[in-house]
Amino acid sequence: MYTYNYLKEFTINVFQKMGCSKEHAEMATNVFMAAELRGLPSHGMLRIKDYYQLWEANRINTNPNIKIVHESPSTAVVDGDGAIGMIAATKSMEIAIEKAEKCGTGWVSTRNSNHYGIAGYYAMMALAHDMVGLSMTIANPVVAPTFSVSRLLGTNPIAVAVPALKHPPFVADFATTPIARGKLAVAEKKGEKVILGYVQDKEGKPSDNPGILKEGGAMVTLGGDYAHGSHKGYCMSAIVDIFSAVFSGANFGPFCPPSVAYLPVLEEKVGEGTGHFFGAMRIDAFQEKEVFKAQMDKWIDTFRSAKPAPGHDRVLIPGDIERENEVRIMKEGIRVIPAIAKDMKEIANELNIDFDEKLAG
Amino acid sequence: MYTYNYLKEFTINVFQKMGCSKEHAEMATNVFMAAELRGLPSHGMLRIKDYYQLWEANRINTNPNIKIVHESPSTAVVDGDGAIGMIAATKSMEIAIEKAEKCGTGWVSTRNSNHYGIAGYYAMMALAHDMVGLSMTIANPVVAPTFSVSRLLGTNPIAVAVPALKHPPFVADFATTPIARGKLAVAEKKGEKVILGYVQDKEGKPSDNPGILKEGGAMVTLGGDYAHGSHKGYCMSAIVDIFSAVFSGANFGPFCPPSVAYLPVLEEKVGEGTGHFFGAMRIDAFQEKEVFKAQMDKWIDTFRSAKPAPGHDRVLIPGDIERENEVRIMKEGIRVIPAIAKDMKEIANELNIDFDEKLAG
Repeated sequence: MYTYNYLKEFTINVFQKMGCSKEHAEMATNVFMAAELRGLPSHGMLRIKDYYQLWEANRINTNPNIKIVHESPSTAVVDGDGAIGMIAATKSMEIAIEKAEKCGTGWVSTRNSNHYGIAGYYAMMALAHDMVGLSMTIANPVVAPTFSVSRLLGTNPIAVAVPALKHPPFVADFATTPIARGKLAVAEKKGEKVILGYVQDKEGKPSDNPGILKEGGAMVTLGGDYAHGSHKGYCMSAIVDIFSAVFSGANFGPFCPPSVAYLPVLEEKVGEGTGHFFGAMRIDAFQEKEVFKAQMDKWIDTFRSAKPAPGHDRVLIPGDIERENEVRIMKEGIRVIPAIAKDMKEIANELNIDFDEKLAG
Repeated sequence: MYTYNYLKEFTINVFQKMGCSKEHAEMATNVFMAAELRGLPSHGMLRIKDYYQLWEANRINTNPNIKIVHESPSTAVVDGDGAIGMIAATKSMEIAIEKAEKCGTGWVSTRNSNHYGIAGYYAMMALAHDMVGLSMTIANPVVAPTFSVSRLLGTNPIAVAVPALKHPPFVADFATTPIARGKLAVAEKKGEKVILGYVQDKEGKPSDNPGILKEGGAMVTLGGDYAHGSHKGYCMSAIVDIFSAVFSGANFGPFCPPSVAYLPVLEEKVGEGTGHFFGAMRIDAFQEKEVFKAQMDKWIDTFRSAKPAPGHDRVLIPGDIERENEVRIMKEGIRVIPAIAKDMKEIANELNIDFDEKLAG
């Protein structure tokens, strides 16, 4: 187990050694740490190696000039200048919040960025400003649209955060596929099959092989198959793709740049880097603040008091699990599995910083 | 078969006889006609009886004072004053478009409205203004959140329309459930079972009985069950509910007023009437118009040229089917089944207007 502060300091060190300013190193680290605390380690320490290798390959820019390249009173397109995704994204969400202060709402589409970690982090940035936050991003193309065998879309997550009064906020953060890609990798490593409805083979037939992506297969969109509404998941994923990459001028769909250095840079480009989309809406642009928040409390009370199905003790509000994880993991410490700690130790050695691999487990 | 013009004139007549101004009668009729043309008759002529009976029961207002009750430069809350949903919604989307002209984007949350027909109609209103349109609405509570047996949510659809250059627009319009509620009714009338993954019984167990809603059952959210991501469909549906009903001060979730007169007015209220949410985003708030549209063409070309799965001859772009229906149905005429034509004839008789029931079939 590692303490929060130990891993935070380590991660800031890594990014500073890679050339980031202290401000940028902390900005990126905050997103990695939020992923670990919220119980989403697939977007935490695991990803440091990816960023390290992209930096070694000269495929990210640790001294970026992130700037607005187009704007209206309530919108902006931000060019991330090849930055670490968490930095371009944090700056973009800050701009959305500034626009909302003046206009009621602010909307930013970002290009020339990279993998940005957990979508929910940026949506939640709005909460402290009494705003509703929204965040979405494209991701590496591993998902086939309905009736297709071509991998055109990513797991394209959507996050929305809404403040309440006495209750903690509503925080939805979900991929537009039935499961996260990381869960396939875990099943594959364990040699397990997966249930039908996650992936298809290269002929488009349902498959229980979590490694089928290596054999020309694809993940399916939320809904699973046409009869169960996969075309609706396709619509959602397509909307994320268009808002994030067409609005901004990033590489949409199958042209999304790989977020790992072991995959080659794509030959064909249709835009600049990876794209995201952010929104901030002042709650008092719709209702008086206290009225809005009190009504969200009532909404949460209503859903919390729903009757659970037999075998379940409660009905969840989006964000409940992750918030409970935060409290628990902050107290217990952050578990890093040995394979990831080994990667971190190697990076530490190369960058000449300290890292205690023995705390892994 | 009926011609488009015949049914349009009939519907305008009905609404005028119910007390609507000519402008309002045409406004409502346009949405009913769009549903028929786009091949979504569950939101077309079938619904005229519902509105007629709500009017008879004094539960809708055909002379509404629709007004903005709260606003910021890019947002408004609109009070529909109990209007026919199509009228409150069209006015609200017009306001969103006006806001976007000035601010880049416009966002309207509407309360005190009623059932608004097809979500896609309002999203598509933005297209002629070179804007992206968005529309969503709450609906009668028949859907249970994940792990629950309580019916707290509607089929809560989302629509997004994006203009292109040489291609027709991208138009996604989908419920946040695996299927539309109307398809359950059709299966029930035919005495057929449905596949698992649409509904659950009162204990929360998967059911193949399309009539299970009458026995305490519920529809499930997109994803179907937790293993296949129903909690993501729950998130989407909850977001629609909050944006439409908490933002506006309408009745959220289980408090959504019945859209049919044979169900009693609910005893408990948490707001005013039914709620919707609308958005309009000027494409030139993000990119130069021609650049944006040319990139959407490239997006559409990319997805259209995806490899179809065996047994399928093409991969669809959201909106393809409905647009093809429009062309075909405008030419062939609109089929109205005898049971619906009979309802229409009864209304015609009561309102003393002409209707030729014999064209049904």
